[in-house]
Amino acid sequence: MTGRAGERADAPTVLAVDIGGTKIAAAVVDGDGRIVADRRTPTLAQESPEVLWKALADLLDAVHADAGAPPLAGVGVGCVGPMTWPDGEVSPLNVPAWRRFPLRRRLRERYPGLPVRVHNDAVCVAVGEHWRGAGRGRDNVLGMVVSTGVGGGLVLGGRLVDGASGNAGHVGHIVVEPDGPPCPCGGRGCLEAVASGPSLVRWARERGWRPDDPDATSADLAADARAGHRVAAAALRRAGRAVGVALASAVHLCDLDTAVIGGGVSQVGAPLFDAAGETLDAHARMDFARRLRVVPTALGQASGLIGAAALVLAGDRYWAAD
Amino acid sequence: MTGRAGERADAPTVLAVDIGGTKIAAAVVDGDGRIVADRRTPTLAQESPEVLWKALADLLDAVHADAGAPPLAGVGVGCVGPMTWPDGEVSPLNVPAWRRFPLRRRLRERYPGLPVRVHNDAVCVAVGEHWRGAGRGRDNVLGMVVSTGVGGGLVLGGRLVDGASGNAGHVGHIVVEPDGPPCPCGGRGCLEAVASGPSLVRWARERGWRPDDPDATSADLAADARAGHRVAAAALRRAGRAVGVALASAVHLCDLDTAVIGGGVSQVGAPLFDAAGETLDAHARMDFARRLRVVPTALGQASGLIGAAALVLAGDRYWAAD
Repeated sequence: MTGRAGERADAPTVLAVDIGGTKIAAAVVDGDGRIVADRRTPTLAQESPEVLWKALADLLDAVHADAGAPPLAGVGVGCVGPMTWPDGEVSPLNVPAWRRFPLRRRLRERYPGLPVRVHNDAVCVAVGEHWRGAGRGRDNVLGMVVSTGVGGGLVLGGRLVDGASGNAGHVGHIVVEPDGPPCPCGGRGCLEAVASGPSLVRWARERGWRPDDPDATSADLAADARAGHRVAAAALRRAGRAVGVALASAVHLCDLDTAVIGGGVSQVGAPLFDAAGETLDAHARMDFARRLRVVPTALGQASGLIGAAALVLAGDRYWAAD
Repeated sequence: MTGRAGERADAPTVLAVDIGGTKIAAAVVDGDGRIVADRRTPTLAQESPEVLWKALADLLDAVHADAGAPPLAGVGVGCVGPMTWPDGEVSPLNVPAWRRFPLRRRLRERYPGLPVRVHNDAVCVAVGEHWRGAGRGRDNVLGMVVSTGVGGGLVLGGRLVDGASGNAGHVGHIVVEPDGPPCPCGGRGCLEAVASGPSLVRWARERGWRPDDPDATSADLAADARAGHRVAAAALRRAGRAVGVALASAVHLCDLDTAVIGGGVSQVGAPLFDAAGETLDAHARMDFARRLRVVPTALGQASGLIGAAALVLAGDRYWAAD
């Protein structure tokens, strides 16, 4: 087990947490961004605030013990939004247990004297991929997570962009069809309203896709597309085109060099990436925009944890608050 | 004449230049961003590179003399793109006289030892409005110029965003209609393809607007809209809606607090701003996005010159190169 804190007393070691709607992952991460130990537990979304808090606290204790209880340099957390930033009062979508739950304050009380930093989970994916993944060494990177929702984070000039209230990177609400379908955000024609897993499945069902499983997901859709189902394939191409339109808008506004795409829906691979690339190519014609590289995430499911760790371990680039 | 360098020897004074397709404006600007003297001359767009260069050099000498020939702290230039950045080799659209003209190098040779900084003209408008205009005191500002083209500049975290190649802020190429009209950039459905002056006029003509003047512009269109011409009014609303869609995408991606809109087409005022505001309101529903303020430029035609001056006078915020 390389990089273990006990073996390198000078290397800072942090606790990293990734809080999603269905599971919480926690890890001990060393100063090089390597995961020394990790564990996960279901998100007790329907329980009381304190039951969920205790599950998180127990998880942190367990993973810290797994790693040999090294001294800690801080705690970094990615959590499903919405939240207030940088205060870290979280009201995660699909987790009614926590509404304005003072996650950052509670963690500070539990780890007195240590930096505790909380940011949006998709922001942490973007940070992780910039710090140690597919965006490493690039200064202008958009990270995008296409999943149950569509989120992201924006790194410009080598630093995380927070915007006025920590909400920069909401790439899922770039408008890709002004008269398009309604979006959970209350708007219309957002990327998320077209390309999220549930949006994809709904669109395909409305056009005659009839999976056996009533709870079929975008993974089933992708399988049917591979098996030659016309509507399923069209749904993935449509999502890819929407991603391409959003990337065209983003590259023109921000002069990005790299877009890193992850999340469950992106696992379908070529059908999504090819359509995104073709659409981007049709809309981004100026030299600078044509230089955008579009790549899948390199860290897989770990990028959110690595990014949460980077909020502490590379705070000069990824944490502008406090 | 307050702020004149001769009266305040401690205040830095700079030459500021705004190079457009039809005219070049130059000014002496004091350390507070006040224009001490200014002049303009036609852009000799069809002449040889050296004839245009001499016209610029003469203009700079004249305006410097007007101001009492104060000692200079630098030269800041906004120029129509495209250009290489930060090298400042310019190939301004509609100015065939200069193709890869080494403007920054030539100015450095003329003003040895002084900082010479060249950026896109619309970026300078955004910088000017952030430094001393309608975006002053805000940290996350998009400046937009709606005119013959649609350009802009982006300030995030209080600093100008350059992006990978100095091209950040190309707001005119945010996609507002994926299947929309072709754009001069080679793409399709860009904001510029819908909302620029020539795009507006073309759309209205195709739908029955018949101005007496064959060279009628968006100003004539606005006048006819005020006089009750249905198609003219619809053209302005369409442009405003496109601006609103672009702003919705930008606020979600960058978490802006302020958008400042200037340029000739924006002079039509309410018909454009009202439609933009209504469309933004329909697409930007999350709390953070609803906080975006959309305001007209405050410095009028001077914002480009003030911004060019700020490249030197406030380089810590607006000039990341060298």
